[in-house]
Amino acid sequence: MELSRRITGITGGGSDGWGLYYRAQALKAEGAEVTELNIGEHDIRTDPAILEAMHEAAKAGHTGYAAVPGITPLREEIAARAQERTGVPTKAANVMVTAGGQAGLFAAHSAVLDPGETGLYLDPHYTTYPGTIRSVGGLPHAVETRPRDAFQPRADEIAEAARATRARSLLINTPNNPTGTVYSRSTLEGIAQACEEADLWLISDEVYDSQVWEGRHLSTRALPGMEARTMVVGSMSKSHAMTGSRIGWIIAPEAAVTQLEQLAINTTYGVQGYIQRAALFALQQGTALEQKIAEPFRRRRAIALDLLAGQQAVTAIPPQGAMYMMLDIRATGMSGEEFALALLEEERIAVMPGESFGAAASGHIRVALTVEDARFADAFGRVLRFAAARAA
Amino acid sequence: MELSRRITGITGGGSDGWGLYYRAQALKAEGAEVTELNIGEHDIRTDPAILEAMHEAAKAGHTGYAAVPGITPLREEIAARAQERTGVPTKAANVMVTAGGQAGLFAAHSAVLDPGETGLYLDPHYTTYPGTIRSVGGLPHAVETRPRDAFQPRADEIAEAARATRARSLLINTPNNPTGTVYSRSTLEGIAQACEEADLWLISDEVYDSQVWEGRHLSTRALPGMEARTMVVGSMSKSHAMTGSRIGWIIAPEAAVTQLEQLAINTTYGVQGYIQRAALFALQQGTALEQKIAEPFRRRRAIALDLLAGQQAVTAIPPQGAMYMMLDIRATGMSGEEFALALLEEERIAVMPGESFGAAASGHIRVALTVEDARFADAFGRVLRFAAARAA
Repeated sequence: MELSRRITGITGGGSDGWGLYYRAQALKAEGAEVTELNIGEHDIRTDPAILEAMHEAAKAGHTGYAAVPGITPLREEIAARAQERTGVPTKAANVMVTAGGQAGLFAAHSAVLDPGETGLYLDPHYTTYPGTIRSVGGLPHAVETRPRDAFQPRADEIAEAARATRARSLLINTPNNPTGTVYSRSTLEGIAQACEEADLWLISDEVYDSQVWEGRHLSTRALPGMEARTMVVGSMSKSHAMTGSRIGWIIAPEAAVTQLEQLAINTTYGVQGYIQRAALFALQQGTALEQKIAEPFRRRRAIALDLLAGQQAVTAIPPQGAMYMMLDIRATGMSGEEFALALLEEERIAVMPGESFGAAASGHIRVALTVEDARFADAFGRVLRFAAARAA
Repeated sequence: MELSRRITGITGGGSDGWGLYYRAQALKAEGAEVTELNIGEHDIRTDPAILEAMHEAAKAGHTGYAAVPGITPLREEIAARAQERTGVPTKAANVMVTAGGQAGLFAAHSAVLDPGETGLYLDPHYTTYPGTIRSVGGLPHAVETRPRDAFQPRADEIAEAARATRARSLLINTPNNPTGTVYSRSTLEGIAQACEEADLWLISDEVYDSQVWEGRHLSTRALPGMEARTMVVGSMSKSHAMTGSRIGWIIAPEAAVTQLEQLAINTTYGVQGYIQRAALFALQQGTALEQKIAEPFRRRRAIALDLLAGQQAVTAIPPQGAMYMMLDIRATGMSGEEFALALLEEERIAVMPGESFGAAASGHIRVALTVEDARFADAFGRVLRFAAARAA
């Protein structure tokens, strides 16, 4: 029986890093000890206090259907967090609770793209971006960013791509996965201008907003005129080490949230009430908890920069945010994919090939700062020596 | 800013019962005591033992990303349950774990319908069906079933609608919400033949499979040749009183599950690992737990049938399954919507207007068997007296 062209076309046929992932899993299943620097997941578990709050909520009877757009106190807390960090007045009615950041990306694109319409995204990109656009029947179109620009996008190229494709939306991610770039004020002003000129919706993935190592995270929603055309996607996954709890949100104009609720009735029928209450508890702990969860990545970033300073085979733009570092391994003459597969076989270290994040990251690998400090230092040193031997 | 035509068109403009729901909520907020016979939610909470299993899994560290198609032991358990009940050989690779039955309906339609293609469904229908088809960009087309057929669909009418619309799929629901009808073997054989003739995918919503009061639930997937063209949607919501945990599944051909996994990467990125382990624990309790959870509905159905026998204003087809009863109130001269709104204002009893389930249920109301026995008996008696006074 034939399936829809939409679902059979989601993967787009490109490299998406799953080959590396499955090979690492297979090696582990054979008993090999693999150091996994390929996964954006904390080396700590969700805080026991958050799990207790969830269990208390469940035992108290919050096990039935919850309000589809989210329970009011959680929507209020998310709105307050956004307002405090951006200065933009934000109410519960601007917030749609989603089953994780990915569900937020999917819903936002479903809300702005009709079948056959183009959604822009920036390359390199988080793995799911083009597939998310294809999942709603849209046409993904990449706009390149460059290592020599420190992966800051060029607004004129976005505007030109929007004109050429008659795009309806632009998806950005700051702090950025995989590059670690935090978009500057001038970058965001350029993006805002491009969105206004081409009448684009801006879908702004800000799930790493609590992980900023240099400068300060700015939300495009805070720029003049942008609130009406911006949907911010947020998540508890990275900021609160709640990846497996699948809870996030969209912040958008009220009229858009009303429609997103209609969509949610038909896609998920809401998010678990006890998880929403656990998320509320976690947000009520304030920025102290978020800083505590971000701190190990700051330390490992420093370890990596120290090690990089002592060699020449690999270059890197120091990440300004997020839990990753992009390494330029072009001096080895290998592609990111060749490098990653060889590194896995020989050193039992898994990293993501740059190509899995798009053409603009070819010749790079992405290293996640997600294993314990001493083990990270050892593995990162081995990655550098492995590269040096190949570059020689 | 304009939103997509798909999202703004989801509701289709018809009555969907939300007006009644919100009015009931408003009355409750004002302090009125409303007996809610309008919601398909148990009057018991999720079993504490299931919640403990969930908490143990969370504390044991299952708080990170879980395998996107579901954890293997849960997929195996769901497969075993299906095989035991249908006789159809079923493996973990046939099972996709979803964020609830609604997410299963959405994913299944996304997998079989391309934008602009027609998905058939039967009227009366569960509220979300046409919206689910619209959410994937499809065109919903209703095929009527009739009170005088006890709402068993006519296969020749399905086949004719499929030809006329060049439909790609048919969505059925047995045991049926809202009618309580359990499709007979001959009905299902007719449906199977219609699906084969018109080369339709069958999406079979069987979330009430543990609630059968007369005869026996049959799965169309078990009929000759149907396994290859059937996606069965299941859920823990009704069978295990886990509505708020949002966990369900699709059982489908392996090749379809592979594609559904690609879709899930972009829609939800999997289901909470600790909820999957709670679901596994619940399923391992076997049919005894499912029967215990179904029992109150069996009792209240008997109470309702007794009360119906003593009057003439309202007629009903005794439900063969599910937690609802459809009452024919046409003798009152009122529409279902008029009746439901008047009943809410005068008697403070909330029921669903038949029209919210489609034109075929006009002049009916749906009563959910979801409040405690004595209160249910009292409220049901008042519904009948209210109708008798109007019919006089």
